[in-house]
Amino acid sequence: MSLDQSATKPHERLAAAIAPEMEAVGRVIRERMSSDHAPRIPEVTAHLVEAGGKRLRPMLTIAAAKMCGYTGQSHIDLAATVEFIHTATLLHDDVVDESSQRRGRPTANLLWDNTSSVLVGDYLFARSFQLMVRTGNLRVLDILSNAAATIAEGEVLQLTAARNLETTEETYFQVVRGKTAALFSAATQVGGVIAERTEDEVQALFDYGDALGISFQIVDDLLDYGGTDATGKSIGDDFREGKLTLPVIRAIAVADAEEAAFWDRTIARNKATEDDLQTALALLTKHGTLEATRKDALAWAGRAKAALDKLPDHEIKGMLADIADYVVARIT
Amino acid sequence: MSLDQSATKPHERLAAAIAPEMEAVGRVIRERMSSDHAPRIPEVTAHLVEAGGKRLRPMLTIAAAKMCGYTGQSHIDLAATVEFIHTATLLHDDVVDESSQRRGRPTANLLWDNTSSVLVGDYLFARSFQLMVRTGNLRVLDILSNAAATIAEGEVLQLTAARNLETTEETYFQVVRGKTAALFSAATQVGGVIAERTEDEVQALFDYGDALGISFQIVDDLLDYGGTDATGKSIGDDFREGKLTLPVIRAIAVADAEEAAFWDRTIARNKATEDDLQTALALLTKHGTLEATRKDALAWAGRAKAALDKLPDHEIKGMLADIADYVVARIT
Repeated sequence: MSLDQSATKPHERLAAAIAPEMEAVGRVIRERMSSDHAPRIPEVTAHLVEAGGKRLRPMLTIAAAKMCGYTGQSHIDLAATVEFIHTATLLHDDVVDESSQRRGRPTANLLWDNTSSVLVGDYLFARSFQLMVRTGNLRVLDILSNAAATIAEGEVLQLTAARNLETTEETYFQVVRGKTAALFSAATQVGGVIAERTEDEVQALFDYGDALGISFQIVDDLLDYGGTDATGKSIGDDFREGKLTLPVIRAIAVADAEEAAFWDRTIARNKATEDDLQTALALLTKHGTLEATRKDALAWAGRAKAALDKLPDHEIKGMLADIADYVVARIT
Repeated sequence: MSLDQSATKPHERLAAAIAPEMEAVGRVIRERMSSDHAPRIPEVTAHLVEAGGKRLRPMLTIAAAKMCGYTGQSHIDLAATVEFIHTATLLHDDVVDESSQRRGRPTANLLWDNTSSVLVGDYLFARSFQLMVRTGNLRVLDILSNAAATIAEGEVLQLTAARNLETTEETYFQVVRGKTAALFSAATQVGGVIAERTEDEVQALFDYGDALGISFQIVDDLLDYGGTDATGKSIGDDFREGKLTLPVIRAIAVADAEEAAFWDRTIARNKATEDDLQTALALLTKHGTLEATRKDALAWAGRAKAALDKLPDHEIKGMLADIADYVVARIT
């Protein structure tokens, strides 16, 4: 990596390389978030869409399609589809988590009400399906409708796994695939499908998105127990909400009787005090589960990069590899 | 209509005529509401699906396809699709309306929580899209994804129109098309599309479903101000929730100063007491808006029957005409 390149962040370099396409995606999003009859819809959507998310998911679709030599227009609609699915999920998540902050701004459920968040989310889901239907590609529709089901299933699974000390690593990865990796992998995979690449290449694109998404989520979960985090997420949220993430699942697995009682009181029975977060951190450090989880995140980022080996040489390929490094840069 | 036929209700006769298909629909619904990982999903879905709704919407799809001579299997998946969209909508509606009763049983949001209702609703939406994709028919996908957007838009519009005395009849019909008629018309239309009928016939199926749905919703709104209602809906709910339905919109349009003050206090400013319902009823009766609305419902049922004229002769055609009469039988 040259000094010049290191001056900007990888996602910014990718954004610059696909700027015209992302502008077109932005136009489709603005056009499609409108409603002739219900002005509440663009109001709520704009609040979230214009809050300055990185648009990483739609960028992945554009990048994958462009790297695969795609020359049509469907990648624009599909990138907008992916962003709409993501935005709908965020709206519903904020209702589910009773969040009050998102991307550094008050959430829609706080500014309007839960009802608006639920219904506008439904509208964006429906809009995303309209957009993907416009591509006329049944394989793409299959991939994205499966992703939507996996996302919702992962969210329900996370809900029922909360405060359950029996949660396994297997369940954790199912939740992570649902809440994060399913949309990443669908976003990259459909880029290869519309470019009519070989099955091996389409699979490699899936593998890249899947591993990138898993890495991304593990890092997010890890930062909830420390690190300098500029994402606006408060440290300890997962602990307070009783979410069983990888460091905690592993610490519980090796807990002695006293530690087990601690996890039972703080997570299972929801009786944690503010001081307990420090004790939790000490236990995670004692058992080395934060460090083990950090290594896992790096390994998944490595798998994402390895998957790129099967894909055609293109300047974007190097940028996608850099994105994988960037995702774990927050913990290295 | 023979004495023998009048012994059973029209929807029961239709159900009997398409019993094998509806059993197959039931199997697809049970198979597709399952989840390998999240048992909460089939629990919540079963609570609603097995509560004994009439399954009118999926019946319309099967009936339309059969009447049009369709001999494949896609109508089964599409009927299940339509029921899943309907069920997802009910789950989200109960959260939005803070309902505690549905089909005579406690609602899912009361038995579990709002979160489960939101996320399981999302799962069923995604499942419905998977099912419709399985048909491989892009026109069907277009119709149903448009219907899903119209439904969500109608729900948002209803939300923002509540307690707004400026609500016009035009807005009312947009809400009704969204909350009810869009799924009815899509349900019947797709039956003709998969049977590859002419554009005129597909349009006639749309018109039948659209008019039937509008008639159905007007009757529902009318019964909220009286009548003997076995649907479990309490009289006066719409008034208490400040919903602007046709009888009220029309009474407001001709209100004198004193009446306008009454509507402003009870609907716009949400200061209604229990006694006010009687006053509201007296005003609706005085201005004849209940009777005018009743005639409208009958006219829409008549339009539904008229649309059938363009469709092929079939024993099911007579049953669909009877369904239109049955929908308004509650107010005749």
